[in-house]
Amino acid sequence: MTLNTVSPLGALLDPIREDLAQVEAEIRRMSTSPAPEMRALLDHVGRFSGKRLRPALTLVAGRMFGPLRPEHATVGAIVELIHTATLVHDDILDESALRRNIETVNRRVGNETAVLLGDYLFATCFKEAAALEDRFASRYLAEIVAIVCRGEILQVHRRNDIDLTEETYFRIIEDKTAALYAAALRCGAEIAHAPQEASRALAEYGLRIGIAFQIIDDILDLTGEEATVGKSLGTDLEKAKMTLPLLRLRERANARDRERLRRVLLSGDRGERDSILPLLREYGAIASARETAEALVEEARRELRRVPDGPERALLFAAADYVLARDR
Amino acid sequence: MTLNTVSPLGALLDPIREDLAQVEAEIRRMSTSPAPEMRALLDHVGRFSGKRLRPALTLVAGRMFGPLRPEHATVGAIVELIHTATLVHDDILDESALRRNIETVNRRVGNETAVLLGDYLFATCFKEAAALEDRFASRYLAEIVAIVCRGEILQVHRRNDIDLTEETYFRIIEDKTAALYAAALRCGAEIAHAPQEASRALAEYGLRIGIAFQIIDDILDLTGEEATVGKSLGTDLEKAKMTLPLLRLRERANARDRERLRRVLLSGDRGERDSILPLLREYGAIASARETAEALVEEARRELRRVPDGPERALLFAAADYVLARDR
Repeated sequence: MTLNTVSPLGALLDPIREDLAQVEAEIRRMSTSPAPEMRALLDHVGRFSGKRLRPALTLVAGRMFGPLRPEHATVGAIVELIHTATLVHDDILDESALRRNIETVNRRVGNETAVLLGDYLFATCFKEAAALEDRFASRYLAEIVAIVCRGEILQVHRRNDIDLTEETYFRIIEDKTAALYAAALRCGAEIAHAPQEASRALAEYGLRIGIAFQIIDDILDLTGEEATVGKSLGTDLEKAKMTLPLLRLRERANARDRERLRRVLLSGDRGERDSILPLLREYGAIASARETAEALVEEARRELRRVPDGPERALLFAAADYVLARDR
Repeated sequence: MTLNTVSPLGALLDPIREDLAQVEAEIRRMSTSPAPEMRALLDHVGRFSGKRLRPALTLVAGRMFGPLRPEHATVGAIVELIHTATLVHDDILDESALRRNIETVNRRVGNETAVLLGDYLFATCFKEAAALEDRFASRYLAEIVAIVCRGEILQVHRRNDIDLTEETYFRIIEDKTAALYAAALRCGAEIAHAPQEASRALAEYGLRIGIAFQIIDDILDLTGEEATVGKSLGTDLEKAKMTLPLLRLRERANARDRERLRRVLLSGDRGERDSILPLLREYGAIASARETAEALVEEARRELRRVPDGPERALLFAAADYVLARDR
């Protein structure tokens, strides 16, 4: 699959650039501190700034039900900083040295400060959420963070488990990845006092594109080009994580090839990516995982029938397509 | 100093045993999960259960202004679980294997799960705080956790800094230790709708006994018996942390002894405790640090003039004395 030189994400975000600028201002406000050593750390973390997909979803969900309120930018910033905090902790777990071509916090200042900085960012998020007049985000987002952690713990717990079921795989990625997408949308809708049916439909849409997003991530970890994706690949093999393409391979392979998969997984060698890739293609395991992601995106699109028609809904259709089109 | 065989803390907690049982019930409720792998981790963490000093302060502060509300037990449990979450993360930072003679989470299930479990506990605390009708705890406790993290980050940042000022030392321990004591008391008072002057006085009292508590901890790390204190000692020297006794030694020592302190500190060898101890005694550095703790406890007692007289105030006087009397 080739990609346009114009980023499909850029097209998606252009209509809400001004609102996203408010989110950026809120992120900056939350990332300041009178203590110089804190400021240096927060400035460094600010350089990881990613695609801002989650706050974009908060804003789009909010605009669907009327003019945005100031709380939308605040909650968008909180959702993004929750994501940042999980990344800071994930980089410790993965012993990563680089993120978006910038030194990770753990590499720069050590694991201890990285653990504490992640905690500080979480606490800042909850402080900001608690300060909002509307209580929804505060009550809901803390629960979502607990769910994200539970998903990650289950994933660590099930490493080296070649017999992982698809049910457990989906439970893990729904918790660790998709729950925060759903929350980004739901908060946007709730702050706008959206009708419950529409608010729930947006959360369901978010859950499905979130799961699809993670499946594509898992595929890219096996098939992507590092230069394009912009991060180390093969890390799931290195960490002996059974992802959907590997589950589909296990299901389809003959006894000999299944044994080969087992050896590759347990070797913890991400260089083995090259040896497993032909197998994945031969058995159609990549294609099968991709079809599942496509089916989830289709389900997500169907959820949008229950939300108001208009330019915001069109953006959410485009976001669903982006999830499948992205190569990084 | 010799100690009674009857624990002075036991005498302090006896009058509120029934209320503390409610706190225990709340901690158990917050430590359950439908996911079996989470349950196993939460059960393990439950075995660390400590002296429950912080929730005891919440309860005593609450009872000072009328019958306790159910929220008091909930907030007491939250404060204790915040403390537990910081311990789970601290044990990773310190690479500790044992806490209260039980395997630490990091030793038992690895650093990755320990980081995530700490995050899960923090999120659970904020979720429970956000669910309370009274908004004070939710707004206040997230800020306190950010302050605790800031204090710990500053402490890591200033390791190996033999020129640390006393001002910075006090800022660190006020943030990392005393702020949570102050919060435990303040939350208890606020949930009871205490008058502002009394609520603030209790927070000031908490801040001062918290700082004194940490100074005594820092002294015990240099002078205590491991069998009595129940944890590894000399860890501040190992981590090259300048604590108050060491600051007082630096201030008083002649050039040769100051140089010796510098070498011991930078050696990162906790076995050097024995070589520095005679110096600390010779220059009166331990006694000087202890006098500062005593003066802080005296200030704390003076704050209690601004709170209602009665059995609860008597308990807080006893708690202040306990801070100085404890040998572990």
